[in-house]
Amino acid sequence: MRVLTLDDDRLLPSDPGTRTVAREIYGAVRALPIVSMHGHVDAALLAHNQPFPDPAQLLVVPDHYVTRMLVSQGESLEQLTTGDPREIWRRFCAGWHLFRGTPSRLWLEHELVDVFGVDITPSAESADLLYDELSAALRRPAFQPRALFERFEIELLATTDSPLSDLAEHLSIIESGWPGVVVPTFRPDTLVQINHPDWQANVQRLADISGIPTGTYPGYIAALEQRRHHFLGHGARATDHGVFSAETEPLDAGAASRIYQSALRGRLTPDQCDAFSAHMMFEMARMSRDDGLVMQIHPGVLRNHDPAIQQTFGSDRGFDIPVPVDFVHGLRPLLNAFGQDPKFRCIVFTIDETTYSRELAPLAGAYPSLRLGAPWWFLDSPAAMRRFREAVTETAGFYNTSGFVDDTRAFCSIPARHDVARRVDSGYLAELVVRGQLGLDEATETAIDLTVTLPRLAYAPR
Amino acid sequence: MRVLTLDDDRLLPSDPGTRTVAREIYGAVRALPIVSMHGHVDAALLAHNQPFPDPAQLLVVPDHYVTRMLVSQGESLEQLTTGDPREIWRRFCAGWHLFRGTPSRLWLEHELVDVFGVDITPSAESADLLYDELSAALRRPAFQPRALFERFEIELLATTDSPLSDLAEHLSIIESGWPGVVVPTFRPDTLVQINHPDWQANVQRLADISGIPTGTYPGYIAALEQRRHHFLGHGARATDHGVFSAETEPLDAGAASRIYQSALRGRLTPDQCDAFSAHMMFEMARMSRDDGLVMQIHPGVLRNHDPAIQQTFGSDRGFDIPVPVDFVHGLRPLLNAFGQDPKFRCIVFTIDETTYSRELAPLAGAYPSLRLGAPWWFLDSPAAMRRFREAVTETAGFYNTSGFVDDTRAFCSIPARHDVARRVDSGYLAELVVRGQLGLDEATETAIDLTVTLPRLAYAPR
Amino acid sequence: MRVLTLDDDRLLPSDPGTRTVAREIYGAVRALPIVSMHGHVDAALLAHNQPFPDPAQLLVVPDHYVTRMLVSQGESLEQLTTGDPREIWRRFCAGWHLFRGTPSRLWLEHELVDVFGVDITPSAESADLLYDELSAALRRPAFQPRALFERFEIELLATTDSPLSDLAEHLSIIESGWPGVVVPTFRPDTLVQINHPDWQANVQRLADISGIPTGTYPGYIAALEQRRHHFLGHGARATDHGVFSAETEPLDAGAASRIYQSALRGRLTPDQCDAFSAHMMFEMARMSRDDGLVMQIHPGVLRNHDPAIQQTFGSDRGFDIPVPVDFVHGLRPLLNAFGQDPKFRCIVFTIDETTYSRELAPLAGAYPSLRLGAPWWFLDSPAAMRRFREAVTETAGFYNTSGFVDDTRAFCSIPARHDVARRVDSGYLAELVVRGQLGLDEATETAIDLTVTLPRLAYAPR
Repeated sequence: MRVLTLDDDRLLPSDPGTRTVAREIYGAVRALPIVSMHGHVDAALLAHNQPFPDPAQLLVVPDHYVTRMLVSQGESLEQLTTGDPREIWRRFCAGWHLFRGTPSRLWLEHELVDVFGVDITPSAESADLLYDELSAALRRPAFQPRALFERFEIELLATTDSPLSDLAEHLSIIESGWPGVVVPTFRPDTLVQINHPDWQANVQRLADISGIPTGTYPGYIAALEQRRHHFLGHGARATDHGVFSAETEPLDAGAASRIYQSALRGRLTPDQCDAFSAHMMFEMARMSRDDGLVMQIHPGVLRNHDPAIQQTFGSDRGFDIPVPVDFVHGLRPLLNAFGQDPKFRCIVFTIDETTYSRELAPLAGAYPSLRLGAPWWFLDSPAAMRRFREAVTETAGFYNTSGFVDDTRAFCSIPARHDVARRVDSGYLAELVVRGQLGLDEATETAIDLTVTLPRLAYAPR
Repeated sequence: MRVLTLDDDRLLPSDPGTRTVAREIYGAVRALPIVSMHGHVDAALLAHNQPFPDPAQLLVVPDHYVTRMLVSQGESLEQLTTGDPREIWRRFCAGWHLFRGTPSRLWLEHELVDVFGVDITPSAESADLLYDELSAALRRPAFQPRALFERFEIELLATTDSPLSDLAEHLSIIESGWPGVVVPTFRPDTLVQINHPDWQANVQRLADISGIPTGTYPGYIAALEQRRHHFLGHGARATDHGVFSAETEPLDAGAASRIYQSALRGRLTPDQCDAFSAHMMFEMARMSRDDGLVMQIHPGVLRNHDPAIQQTFGSDRGFDIPVPVDFVHGLRPLLNAFGQDPKFRCIVFTIDETTYSRELAPLAGAYPSLRLGAPWWFLDSPAAMRRFREAVTETAGFYNTSGFVDDTRAFCSIPARHDVARRVDSGYLAELVVRGQLGLDEATETAIDLTVTLPRLAYAPR
Repeated sequence: MRVLTLDDDRLLPSDPGTRTVAREIYGAVRALPIVSMHGHVDAALLAHNQPFPDPAQLLVVPDHYVTRMLVSQGESLEQLTTGDPREIWRRFCAGWHLFRGTPSRLWLEHELVDVFGVDITPSAESADLLYDELSAALRRPAFQPRALFERFEIELLATTDSPLSDLAEHLSIIESGWPGVVVPTFRPDTLVQINHPDWQANVQRLADISGIPTGTYPGYIAALEQRRHHFLGHGARATDHGVFSAETEPLDAGAASRIYQSALRGRLTPDQCDAFSAHMMFEMARMSRDDGLVMQIHPGVLRNHDPAIQQTFGSDRGFDIPVPVDFVHGLRPLLNAFGQDPKFRCIVFTIDETTYSRELAPLAGAYPSLRLGAPWWFLDSPAAMRRFREAVTETAGFYNTSGFVDDTRAFCSIPARHDVARRVDSGYLAELVVRGQLGLDEATETAIDLTVTLPRLAYAPR
């Protein structure tokens, strides 16, 4: 069996001189608290504070980065999601080499060594040993969610929540007296995408929970506004919008109302769905301008590329594939209306790297309301983060970006993900120092700003 | 207050061995004259040779790279363009950190230290001191435009001019006996974009200045040809075309004439405008083939993304945003007609980096008439220049590129911009040497070619 | 005259520490056999084993990478293809500087030094000397094709063949008793692109060679299946599809049949051609699932951009230009039908780099039947190979790629091309080691897998 260690200089630049500078910059941010403004951890985890059930449920089953890789090499998704946990773990360990060069490998190594104290590399041979070792750890109080939250030094954790949620778990965390800060994020996708199969049921539930009838378009809008205020009252900082396109063209009230009525009757053309989606993005921007919730947009993913996978296993199974996005025309109505308004803040994410230097950096380097989100999803990885800084900084600078967000369901990977970003940014800044573009003092200040100042500012209540 | 110096090795590679090689290559090009074939400095500046009024007018107000960054972080564009110069300067200095990692920072530092001898970093604290120091310098004869032109060792400066200009300033420079070479460039955008608000007035002015009636399409063409000959007579080397798309499909004479007549009557469909724009690109190529002016094309920018900014402050305010360009189909009619003709020379610029390896390098590596222009506008920056060389060289080589062009209105930034390009190219060539792909003698020769030989050749009278 | 040598460390990383690691990794793969699964060498070359006629025919005339570069700088294509061989060679040598920084330079240097023992750099001065030296070498038995094949240590060479070929040369190689393994590849482009000018003649020839009448669509399908089995019987591993778009939407049998009948009558709309092309890609995938031939797809090239060149000189003259490709929607029907089927294997190539991180890596990191082909055509070069690994690995890992393929008509460049890929991959892996992402043992194992294991596996009979 092979020893597992973490290289203390991992991800820092190869050139020794630059690495020395990077190490100094990284030293200033390594231990800063984690500001996690855009995550997908379930608040129930911290409300109930139950131990994680087993290593497979902890590290494999809920992580579509991991299962998709194993499936791409011939493993059965059914086995990986519903099989015996120890058997799942064995398959994962036997496929350890598949993760070479991927961010999953970095996160998993960091979790194994730094969170769980493991010192053996996963492999077919070591699988059972590791399973037993991790299982034992998970039974200890130090590995319960709240204990880990404190050990991770998380300053604030934002979750992602349906407008239909009463946020009972968030309330229960507050009322428990535990000092961890866990705030909800308003994600209305299934209420504004009128072709979503659950949409009609959802608008009825929206009426129920808000107490505002949603049989008319104005009622629907008022009910959404009521939910946003409910979220604000529970500490929410932001909304989050996973849309297919970046279109934001508003409809007039009559047209919006007519499409809404058609949607209620279940008679929709694809054009109506697209038009209403664009309109609701504009409306959500208008509401953000009015109530101060920061608007997060991440368009451009074709969900459930393989319908057979979706039918059998549901969504979020690794078969969501990025597509090109046109931010320039798409965001224009929204930015023309609200982009210069100091009460509005919009953060945009993409997985279409072609838009970094062509569209997003030029837009963010002009409109005061716009900030660029961190490299997201498939791009939450060292080389992609580096490409982001290289493509964006020269046009938009550092201060039109909003700092790192981890965007994960995998609670134990949060420190690893923030650490990767801190290392990559330190390396990038170190090269600017070595190439005479920045002083070391400036670079260090910038690293600190990217780590804590900018996310705090970008998501500050407005 | 913080000392301001220039690192003599700035932008050279981080690896010490590669840096040593880069330093040697750069040493061979550092002091070469500046060949500035595509700039936007006003000829009047050198005709009248008046001192620059104040530091804000010199370095902030006319530079949309600078104002857009300050606006993106909440400064008022009104204040920055019409406010008290000292107050504008203060805001610029207070926002100095926003430019970290941007080319503006490199240019401004170079100008402050190398052109004006400043040794203090801009900041809120140092703003007034710097303002007074720069104001004093600007009153000295050594900082008048012609003195700077000579100090910058500019071999040739091309300006950008309307076909409606009589080129009086260019003539006045020639007649003054001052030896600086300042040549005009023929930029007919507002005469060929028939949906431009001033188009009708402009074709009337075209008739007036050319003495050729423009009431018919043949007259319009003849008048444009007359203006090109006027420009040639005043030393022009090139034309310059800022178009939205790269389309170049010609119309037959009848169709062109019908659209022209509709344009005169002010009745146009968007399709007619697009068709006429494409047609006129083809016509301009035809004229270039006939008269030898080099044709420069830079498509793919959505101008005035925020109409409110345009309405209040006019164009060129930092709200022009790139869009994708299709060069392969767009340029095909033009290249099929003239791309193999030794009398025709076309230089193409882009801000859509996706086209470098996919479209532009393959086209330039085949058609003898085509050369690739330098990384342009937002891409006139160290990392983007490097990406250009990396994406283009392997397919098109060095000798299908046309050398660096500074593309600036900011006269004092010209040496800084050429210096950045020389440093980046030296670093790129040094890596080819260190990686055994080029001899040092070849790399040095190539660097010299990129700096002076290729721009001289690419824009040579044909 | 300038000495010509090969730097033993060429293309390895600049940083000395990283280079040391890279050298060790490269040492483990440098001498591995060549697995050449996707080439365009004519089987006749090895069947007849005739000496190469002269240096121009060996290195210049058939290599469109070389002729296009010379043409782009003003040389005449007519002269380069039909002129006196010595004169062609002189022009090539005089233009040696044009290849600086290109992969052609690397391949040519490797061939000259390593294959032919030349020690003088090509130039106008050395041209005749080199011509005579190479001519003398070509007359020696050691430089006949089979001797070179053995010296190159080629484990397997796949050629590219028309379904209309009887594969007589392949059979003759087998029957000759020579142990070299040369297998055909089934490339049906001119039989499935119904707007190809030779299509009608080709389907008639298909009937003749298969003995199955092609007057009906079912007959046409059966005849294609018969040819695939003929190829399988002669050792074929794969099919190869050069299509314009990535569309794979199938038609129902009736619609396919109707378009087929229209094609036979020569009455086709562009929409019908596109629909039939997409349909046939789906059909070819279905056949691959059934017979086990690996399906190779490389879409997205606009062939013969300059029709005048095509008319005078024919196809493959350097005027084929890449265009954007939509793999996400295009491949969806094919992947939904066969992407999870263990009997199906598909390898996708592209020259549109924007799809690496956005489309191809996410798709290959999910569908078990999909592998990513090596950087292809214009991207078969050091910086482009490096960009491929950087853009793809973090999402798809190494094991969803299929190893290097040389894709060349130029027989003597095969070792050079594989060597470049081995060096670039070693350098990339070395950086992962130095940055603490991989152990040296893992990196070395991965390098070996990329060099021989993965191509053997990816193209293994299924």
